[in-house]
Amino acid sequence: MNVSVADSPFTAQDHLFMSQALALAKKGHFTTSPNPRVGCVLVSYKGGVGKVIGTGYHEKAGQGHAEVNALAEANVNHSALIKGATAYVTLEPCSHFGRTPPCAQALIAAGVGHVIAAMVDPNPQVSGNGLTLLEQAGIKVQSGLLAQGAKALNVGFIHLMENKRPYVRCKLAASLDGKTAMASGESQWITSSAARQDVQRLRAQSCAIISGADAIIFDNAKMTVRWSELGELKNSYAKETLRQPLRVVIDSQNRLTPDLALFEHDSPILIIHAKIENKCATNLENLPKWPHFVEQVQLPVVKNAQGKFKIDLPALLTLLAKRGLNDILIESGAQLSGAFIEQDLVNELILYQAPKLMGGEGKNLVAMPVITKLNQAKALTISDIRMVGGDIRITSQLTANK
Amino acid sequence: MNVSVADSPFTAQDHLFMSQALALAKKGHFTTSPNPRVGCVLVSYKGGVGKVIGTGYHEKAGQGHAEVNALAEANVNHSALIKGATAYVTLEPCSHFGRTPPCAQALIAAGVGHVIAAMVDPNPQVSGNGLTLLEQAGIKVQSGLLAQGAKALNVGFIHLMENKRPYVRCKLAASLDGKTAMASGESQWITSSAARQDVQRLRAQSCAIISGADAIIFDNAKMTVRWSELGELKNSYAKETLRQPLRVVIDSQNRLTPDLALFEHDSPILIIHAKIENKCATNLENLPKWPHFVEQVQLPVVKNAQGKFKIDLPALLTLLAKRGLNDILIESGAQLSGAFIEQDLVNELILYQAPKLMGGEGKNLVAMPVITKLNQAKALTISDIRMVGGDIRITSQLTANK
Repeated sequence: MNVSVADSPFTAQDHLFMSQALALAKKGHFTTSPNPRVGCVLVSYKGGVGKVIGTGYHEKAGQGHAEVNALAEANVNHSALIKGATAYVTLEPCSHFGRTPPCAQALIAAGVGHVIAAMVDPNPQVSGNGLTLLEQAGIKVQSGLLAQGAKALNVGFIHLMENKRPYVRCKLAASLDGKTAMASGESQWITSSAARQDVQRLRAQSCAIISGADAIIFDNAKMTVRWSELGELKNSYAKETLRQPLRVVIDSQNRLTPDLALFEHDSPILIIHAKIENKCATNLENLPKWPHFVEQVQLPVVKNAQGKFKIDLPALLTLLAKRGLNDILIESGAQLSGAFIEQDLVNELILYQAPKLMGGEGKNLVAMPVITKLNQAKALTISDIRMVGGDIRITSQLTANK
Repeated sequence: MNVSVADSPFTAQDHLFMSQALALAKKGHFTTSPNPRVGCVLVSYKGGVGKVIGTGYHEKAGQGHAEVNALAEANVNHSALIKGATAYVTLEPCSHFGRTPPCAQALIAAGVGHVIAAMVDPNPQVSGNGLTLLEQAGIKVQSGLLAQGAKALNVGFIHLMENKRPYVRCKLAASLDGKTAMASGESQWITSSAARQDVQRLRAQSCAIISGADAIIFDNAKMTVRWSELGELKNSYAKETLRQPLRVVIDSQNRLTPDLALFEHDSPILIIHAKIENKCATNLENLPKWPHFVEQVQLPVVKNAQGKFKIDLPALLTLLAKRGLNDILIESGAQLSGAFIEQDLVNELILYQAPKLMGGEGKNLVAMPVITKLNQAKALTISDIRMVGGDIRITSQLTANK
């Protein structure tokens, strides 16, 4: 039919196949980290009407990219139709050798005639290189089809590429009056099991989770993704294939001990120690012997508004960015969460509110220095409100750091 | 057509006409206080298919009831069809002489043949009397059609009739971390103008608004409904017909002075003073001379958890109930709101959350005594969450006091 959508260089069939590619990309939502989620649909227009001859998506870092997987599928039954076919990809095909050869080369070698990308590479330094490579090989290229959908797939990856800093989500849970725990400390069950299950989903989609040692010790928390608590997601992933995000623990006072539940699960842990100039406060060799999956680094400290020395949080995010970790979740107490927010390092706040009023003596939601004017408050833009079980979930973007 | 709805004694036409009656009743939402909102549709089935011959609703206390207004309308052009007609009423017709004669008598006198009420009178002592009166006059009566919709029209009225206590809403506004004001006191503009306009709507539907003297003095608040801020509601009400709720101010320390903005608007004010046994703490004759629209009463005090003497809040609600005031809105600070909530006197909490984080030094949302167990927190059931401008509005019912 090839009906042209008004004011668009793309046809209705183009929209259909790109939607399919987006849906394929989503299948990698919890597994591709730190790579982007990408889907590809190969279509032959030889009979006039488009016919899907191969589909693929990226599942896991180090494994095949979407384009290569789609070409492989097409090769099985439709190899004769690949020449001249149209490839719908949700992200511009890569042009560099990474853990796998460049996808642009694979598409050229296979002889496709047309490549439509939903969006160009978000890294400003290489953006367009893949499409140029294809164009120079005589392939027709277009981009920008369903770009919003493609961007939503890879919020963290795009943010890292564009800003050289991860996309940071901060998860908090409180009563409706903003209290996170009793004066006595009782806290773990403020929100419902449905909300806690939702947090498991947040963890599962993250490259890394940041906590403070105090919070880890207080709750004796494992900070792992628990397959049994993933709800419907369990249907999509076998227990043994579950990816665990890197667990980053800020431990400037060296309080962690190997007997904590944190160290029971053998997935990677990164402990952040304080590096204090001219003070051998942290001699890593004097620390306890950790299990093999624990890595330790020292980061500089800075004086905060209360005159206390705290780990340099921007330096931590830079460290994570250099490792390609793009979707970061902060799950900690009022002090560390407040410090990240205060320094405008949080992009998104996810607040679970339990339908309770706790009154004046509970702990506050975020610890931040005294402000004297209302316009010094941290401004948010609400992007989503909904019920999760009996609790409210509010998703918002920090206005200063969108 | 008269298609019978499954398992219901009512026809599809019945549902249609009762829906119309409910819509008519809603027109009195902001004006009938303290009377219930009631609508009536008179239908003649003489031609087989129902034909509306008169409609009416109750607009204002002291003026015609819905049934009487509908009969009057029918009398103009369809007087011959009234005999044997069906009256759809959202509330059981009254059987007693109030400010107007009983509607049941009017329906009997007019000769209607069938009365369908959405619900019976919520006052357990007279419930069913109106229908019995009609039945004894040979009229066919039914009730329970679209009862949920009818109940939603008159939440406060029904609550008062059933519990001898008003339905109490408490409005609060805070930042997302539950802070209501700066340590400096700056507070008036935490929420957006859209939220403040929504509060005007809450005031306009209330019989009375309760505040504490401290809050009134701090904000120099008028506590009136401002026509200019009613948004779309302005289209339904002429400025001069606007009904002002009774302004109830708890002033146990006799802090109010006649120069406050509160006294600029000549709509009724009720000042609550403390009556302390064997102590002439409040001699009403020694107080300032108030304008003519101010009434003063003394209520007993009780010792609160902090050992302070406070006005007996249940006694205040009983006073308001005796005056027939059923929809009550509390608009005050953390102390008074907290006291009402703590004593399980609030039915509904309406919380506006501004998309801001204020940090640890702002004022708390509600002041309540220290609790030592999480299960002592006041439990809520969320009934509605939505955006109002850039703010979140959360409506919830206090579980202890539904």
